[in-house]
Amino acid sequence: MATGVSLKKYKASHVIGRSIVNVFETLESEVRSYSRSWPVVFDRAVGSWLYGEDGRAYLDFFAGAGALNYGHNNPVLKRALLDYIERDGITHGLDMHTTAKRDFLESVQEVLLRPRGLDYRLMFPGPGGVNTVEAALKLARKVTGRESVINFTNAFHGMTLGALSVTGNSMKRGGAGIPLVHATPMPYDNYFDGQTPDFLFFEKLLEDSGSGLNEPAAVIVETVQGEGGINAARIEWLQGLSELCKQHGILLIVDDVQMGCGRTGPFFSFEPAGIQPDIVCLSKSIGGYGLPLALTLFKPELDVWEPGEHNGTFRGINPAFVAAGAALREYWTDDTLEKATLAKGEQIARTLDDLVSEFPSAELTAKGRGLARGLELASGELADRVAKAAFERGLLMETSGPEGQVVKMMPALTISEDEVEQGMTILVEAVRTVLR
Amino acid sequence: MATGVSLKKYKASHVIGRSIVNVFETLESEVRSYSRSWPVVFDRAVGSWLYGEDGRAYLDFFAGAGALNYGHNNPVLKRALLDYIERDGITHGLDMHTTAKRDFLESVQEVLLRPRGLDYRLMFPGPGGVNTVEAALKLARKVTGRESVINFTNAFHGMTLGALSVTGNSMKRGGAGIPLVHATPMPYDNYFDGQTPDFLFFEKLLEDSGSGLNEPAAVIVETVQGEGGINAARIEWLQGLSELCKQHGILLIVDDVQMGCGRTGPFFSFEPAGIQPDIVCLSKSIGGYGLPLALTLFKPELDVWEPGEHNGTFRGINPAFVAAGAALREYWTDDTLEKATLAKGEQIARTLDDLVSEFPSAELTAKGRGLARGLELASGELADRVAKAAFERGLLMETSGPEGQVVKMMPALTISEDEVEQGMTILVEAVRTVLR
Amino acid sequence: MATGVSLKKYKASHVIGRSIVNVFETLESEVRSYSRSWPVVFDRAVGSWLYGEDGRAYLDFFAGAGALNYGHNNPVLKRALLDYIERDGITHGLDMHTTAKRDFLESVQEVLLRPRGLDYRLMFPGPGGVNTVEAALKLARKVTGRESVINFTNAFHGMTLGALSVTGNSMKRGGAGIPLVHATPMPYDNYFDGQTPDFLFFEKLLEDSGSGLNEPAAVIVETVQGEGGINAARIEWLQGLSELCKQHGILLIVDDVQMGCGRTGPFFSFEPAGIQPDIVCLSKSIGGYGLPLALTLFKPELDVWEPGEHNGTFRGINPAFVAAGAALREYWTDDTLEKATLAKGEQIARTLDDLVSEFPSAELTAKGRGLARGLELASGELADRVAKAAFERGLLMETSGPEGQVVKMMPALTISEDEVEQGMTILVEAVRTVLR
Amino acid sequence: MATGVSLKKYKASHVIGRSIVNVFETLESEVRSYSRSWPVVFDRAVGSWLYGEDGRAYLDFFAGAGALNYGHNNPVLKRALLDYIERDGITHGLDMHTTAKRDFLESVQEVLLRPRGLDYRLMFPGPGGVNTVEAALKLARKVTGRESVINFTNAFHGMTLGALSVTGNSMKRGGAGIPLVHATPMPYDNYFDGQTPDFLFFEKLLEDSGSGLNEPAAVIVETVQGEGGINAARIEWLQGLSELCKQHGILLIVDDVQMGCGRTGPFFSFEPAGIQPDIVCLSKSIGGYGLPLALTLFKPELDVWEPGEHNGTFRGINPAFVAAGAALREYWTDDTLEKATLAKGEQIARTLDDLVSEFPSAELTAKGRGLARGLELASGELADRVAKAAFERGLLMETSGPEGQVVKMMPALTISEDEVEQGMTILVEAVRTVLR
Repeated sequence: MATGVSLKKYKASHVIGRSIVNVFETLESEVRSYSRSWPVVFDRAVGSWLYGEDGRAYLDFFAGAGALNYGHNNPVLKRALLDYIERDGITHGLDMHTTAKRDFLESVQEVLLRPRGLDYRLMFPGPGGVNTVEAALKLARKVTGRESVINFTNAFHGMTLGALSVTGNSMKRGGAGIPLVHATPMPYDNYFDGQTPDFLFFEKLLEDSGSGLNEPAAVIVETVQGEGGINAARIEWLQGLSELCKQHGILLIVDDVQMGCGRTGPFFSFEPAGIQPDIVCLSKSIGGYGLPLALTLFKPELDVWEPGEHNGTFRGINPAFVAAGAALREYWTDDTLEKATLAKGEQIARTLDDLVSEFPSAELTAKGRGLARGLELASGELADRVAKAAFERGLLMETSGPEGQVVKMMPALTISEDEVEQGMTILVEAVRTVLR
Repeated sequence: MATGVSLKKYKASHVIGRSIVNVFETLESEVRSYSRSWPVVFDRAVGSWLYGEDGRAYLDFFAGAGALNYGHNNPVLKRALLDYIERDGITHGLDMHTTAKRDFLESVQEVLLRPRGLDYRLMFPGPGGVNTVEAALKLARKVTGRESVINFTNAFHGMTLGALSVTGNSMKRGGAGIPLVHATPMPYDNYFDGQTPDFLFFEKLLEDSGSGLNEPAAVIVETVQGEGGINAARIEWLQGLSELCKQHGILLIVDDVQMGCGRTGPFFSFEPAGIQPDIVCLSKSIGGYGLPLALTLFKPELDVWEPGEHNGTFRGINPAFVAAGAALREYWTDDTLEKATLAKGEQIARTLDDLVSEFPSAELTAKGRGLARGLELASGELADRVAKAAFERGLLMETSGPEGQVVKMMPALTISEDEVEQGMTILVEAVRTVLR
Repeated sequence: MATGVSLKKYKASHVIGRSIVNVFETLESEVRSYSRSWPVVFDRAVGSWLYGEDGRAYLDFFAGAGALNYGHNNPVLKRALLDYIERDGITHGLDMHTTAKRDFLESVQEVLLRPRGLDYRLMFPGPGGVNTVEAALKLARKVTGRESVINFTNAFHGMTLGALSVTGNSMKRGGAGIPLVHATPMPYDNYFDGQTPDFLFFEKLLEDSGSGLNEPAAVIVETVQGEGGINAARIEWLQGLSELCKQHGILLIVDDVQMGCGRTGPFFSFEPAGIQPDIVCLSKSIGGYGLPLALTLFKPELDVWEPGEHNGTFRGINPAFVAAGAALREYWTDDTLEKATLAKGEQIARTLDDLVSEFPSAELTAKGRGLARGLELASGELADRVAKAAFERGLLMETSGPEGQVVKMMPALTISEDEVEQGMTILVEAVRTVLR
Repeated sequence: MATGVSLKKYKASHVIGRSIVNVFETLESEVRSYSRSWPVVFDRAVGSWLYGEDGRAYLDFFAGAGALNYGHNNPVLKRALLDYIERDGITHGLDMHTTAKRDFLESVQEVLLRPRGLDYRLMFPGPGGVNTVEAALKLARKVTGRESVINFTNAFHGMTLGALSVTGNSMKRGGAGIPLVHATPMPYDNYFDGQTPDFLFFEKLLEDSGSGLNEPAAVIVETVQGEGGINAARIEWLQGLSELCKQHGILLIVDDVQMGCGRTGPFFSFEPAGIQPDIVCLSKSIGGYGLPLALTLFKPELDVWEPGEHNGTFRGINPAFVAAGAALREYWTDDTLEKATLAKGEQIARTLDDLVSEFPSAELTAKGRGLARGLELASGELADRVAKAAFERGLLMETSGPEGQVVKMMPALTISEDEVEQGMTILVEAVRTVLR
């Protein structure tokens, strides 16, 4: 039963199935997308499994587009959340001090920052990924007095005007309705398949005072591009980028909204590179349970905000603080999860490599790092068919990349090896069905 | 206890009280604001009351800046929410079909739209107010092929680049770090104290092909400006604006993020004007329980989105759907709440009028509609002192307006008449303390 | 004969008359405009008369859109010019020092600035009006560090992107192909027919920190709007504007490209207001003979340019310096021309007033100051018919205003009273023909 | 004598030499530049020689920054000009039909377009280079409905906002005072010293729908970058660029303001590539005598202008038409000038090559094509010293390139071989003086 309040209505609507479909189709805008790929009405979810209202189970290799790293309705977090709601803890608190917020801040300090030697200030920029990206861009511009930002080919940072202006996808950019003009795209790692030295173009433009490149306030980068097609930048490329930014007095923003919170293994995706970005954007899985939460971290010397200069109504969702803090304390006080993520990532990678070998003429490419994995096919149409074949077998995966040509595997980090194996077995069948 | 997980740490931090304060001050950015006015660590909340961790109760005339119209932790919604979480209903669902979403959509259709004869399509633009504003602006530009937008003096629509560009406050605009250039401000109702006919300037600029005004895609308006200082536009002004937009083929966007959901009496604040905006923005209290949720409603013929052309991770927070649907069904199937809101609004208005009479030389002005009420003082400094004096007596109110000169009263709509009376008694004392 | 070089070709083309017409129609872009109103091939011109190649004479009440204040081929300037060219004086000199330039600079200092107590620096921004406007806007932005500019309804400042962004005409703005976004239009003097106090809107927006108006670097204004329809701002309005700018630290730019050089009587059109703009734009008649020349004058403390930060190939047209200097010395060492201009302006005004009285139901309005005069008709179509009827009688006038509803009379300042009378006689006939 | 009018004043000022210097220094803005390098007051000029007021002669390897391809005060053009002025031909004609304009148009048609098989429409966009660039950009945006433009590293197109936005030099861009945001720089030919295939980056960005590059309306290119440091694009690079534009539906604009009119040999610099740009910008030497004139040529199908949609006061400087037409007829009815230009270009190139060989460790590079030649030194400081040493020996040359590291040789095309030799002898001495 949905809510405990509308039992009669709920049952009634169940009976007249057609009208149920109708409310989605007649009321909801054409902008909806995932529901077109997966024509199911989902009802419940636990761990790596979603259940349709008909009871059918679906294995989740999608994980809320990276917002459910700890699985659906993780029992540890659920317990903390239910207890908090039950006891009438503050729910909505703007940026007021609350005990739940203090608890969370302490966890951030003790579990995330101190052990990694990171000295950051933290702001709550609003509930979602775009809020942290917009806050990061505003801060970088305010600090430097410059307006231009460097983004990368096939970047994805969100759909509000500031975030959209640093996003690559042309269809999404077109939705802005105004020219998006304050960012210049540079080639992401391996954009030219190794034909050119790293940063050849970017570095020359920066050094040449006649290049016509506006002096950038910041570079914004994803260490692995999720929406862009699971493109993993090499560690040395990230190091080079950090170095280049330092040399030219450009702030480095790592958008870890999708790849942070352990998606690639370590909590922060940039840890293996040994770099310390000036600004870090977190959202999605930071809330732990799938409730909206976002953080912007920045070096203390960048904290030039006026009180209230950036604000928003949903900066203090305390149930999210509770789940978020519980997740940090449960999963990040040692390296168990990190190691398991890397191991399961390798498990997927092996199967992908086998597929690449099995279809030598199919132009397959295995991509990714940690539990952000992708299989690139020769076209978006083929990838769609693979994802559809997998869905028919009970596996949820989306496609990404500019042409949608990459089948994307992002299961919960808490998935079991058996579940990974189940998923990969379905993937292999789906690929074989499509490519044979 | 905060979470059930970190009992030992939590207790420890309680003991070392100083370090607790420290985590707010040392880790959180200078951008924080409300916590500066209210130096309390809040712990619990029920209805119109918040409780500090020391157990002290505070009467809430702030209501999460309008996000808590049904009070803190409303028991009806709480029950629905706990049941839903307990039974492992989908938490995070992007734009997938879910039973909780269907339930909510049906409630929107049956409770909100059909009885009011409103024919709208609905999209979930992301979790908060800025998302619905950004989506509305993008859609208006896409539909019309124009880029310019008309906003009003002292408007507030949010802090992402698109929303900020239609916001008036100069300090907040300054935070953008780039010129905000795609909107032109027009005088809000009564901006010149009745010295000029309504729309004198706006209408002339529209009709004069040499005026230099870029042809607008849309007008975005709040029927009552909350952040702008509780400025309530007259019904006939709203009607005139709607008429003007129709004549010139300009889309009318009503930002009902703060003033919708019954804040001024009826569910939609524009109902008394008998107008039907082309696009309506909802957020804040639409989620019912204070969880992030936002809707963008628009006339069916405007639904020109491509699938996925606007998206976002937190468009499908199903616990928010559950609470939101429960709130609609609990409070909006008859006019009980609307009438009570208007009555309690009058209750406040009478006291404000008395204060104005009591201090004839103090330039006080009573403002507002429904349960969005304000007392304007001669300066921001006086208003701050009134709010501070009220806080010391246990009443939470914020100030608004360009100089912060308006003390803002926005209690939960579910507040009792007694609680209103308690609050107004404190307000009167606070005003007397400051002005005498 | 056209050039002394191509006699044979010239004669040949004369014979095959059709092909002559063809080269205008087949080679020149559709963008041409005046040649559509006046289907004549002009050949020679002296004083206030142009001659078609068939020898027909046309009385010129147009004067090169204000570029020929001293008449066509003024003999004094012609002599100076011929002598200079004959003796191989420098023709093209960029910003090199030349004797001709020194001569001109001394004349500016001695004839224009010193007697008026004006302390300005001078730059040569390029050959035409847009160059001085673009330089003025760039300088104002550089000095203030702000980007926004206030322009006025029905302003005209030119067709390059910077100048176009402060121009009102919607058709011309549309030609930009990008949103023109860095200026906000304010109502020009008398825009509301005296219904509102001067600067009501502008002043309120400036004083209200929540108005949403970006803080302006500068105001750019024409004292009489020529292209906008011969709208003459009152002296006290100009004084109020100057005062308002001072109070708010906004630079005042007077675009005197069309109304300077004596068009309204005094050399600078702002002299009667007793104000000293921060920046003054001159072009059109400053060159004297119709050769391209432009100046930007600004207060010495604004001279923050880096060497070469603004440049251009045609900043040093020395024959123009020669004619320009000669004009200053011939016409501006006493007040003879100024007085004559005012007298002839009155002469026109009387006839216009008579016409207004003669056709009480025709909604005629007589407009203007000095020798910038206009007769506003009820529509652009009527004004076109008047201009056409005048042309058929041998009088050249253009129309202006947003709908082209104003017949514009701008004869050379050197026109004789008799010639004025001839022109006005034709005008009266033309109006009677159209309105009766 | 300067003007025939102010003899007395002129002589007086000559006597008080100090005050003469003063008027340049006290009145003219700090923005002046060339006059700082060449502290001479020039008086007369003939052919390739300028004369200071003290009578000293200077050999001109600068040619008005390319505006004097036919030399100073070319006698053929001078005769035509004097005759025209003497006979009171129309001087200032806006876009009215005149006999002088017809003559010029016919010459363009017969001498330039028809023999080259070029089918273009022509507009007069205003007097100078920025006008034709601004008109070209406006037209490209209007035709395509797109706003973005691709420019190249180290491009120079002018100083008004539209032209500046496609210019590379950071100091000049900084003068805009607003973000210049509607262009994206791509690497010019050989920007990476042959390390990458041509158009590697540009092509990939165009083909990748996720690249984040806004779809361009146009590419604007100089075939040889003059201000950028005499960078000559290879013929095959221009061909590749033309092909790339065609494939992607992007308009190709060749800015031939400096390199057209025979500077590189053929009249249009793009002729050797066998390409036909969609839009061609001409100015500088098109006027022949150094008087301001500019043309924009475009394919007939692009002629979508509304009448008057782009205009300007100085579009019809008829004396410039006369000189321009005379120049076309004198120099472009056969290939004599083209061949001579190429021969004299080789003459310079040989000396430059010798210098490169003579100083193997000095990192000298010989650059250029036709009579646009440059010698790149290791630094701007060295190039300045060479130019200064040359000036002291009576040779005028400027420096260009982002660091001013290239000594630029652009004599009149009509220079004699002897004069070339004189100039190169001085250059060799100057280089030796500096480098030894």
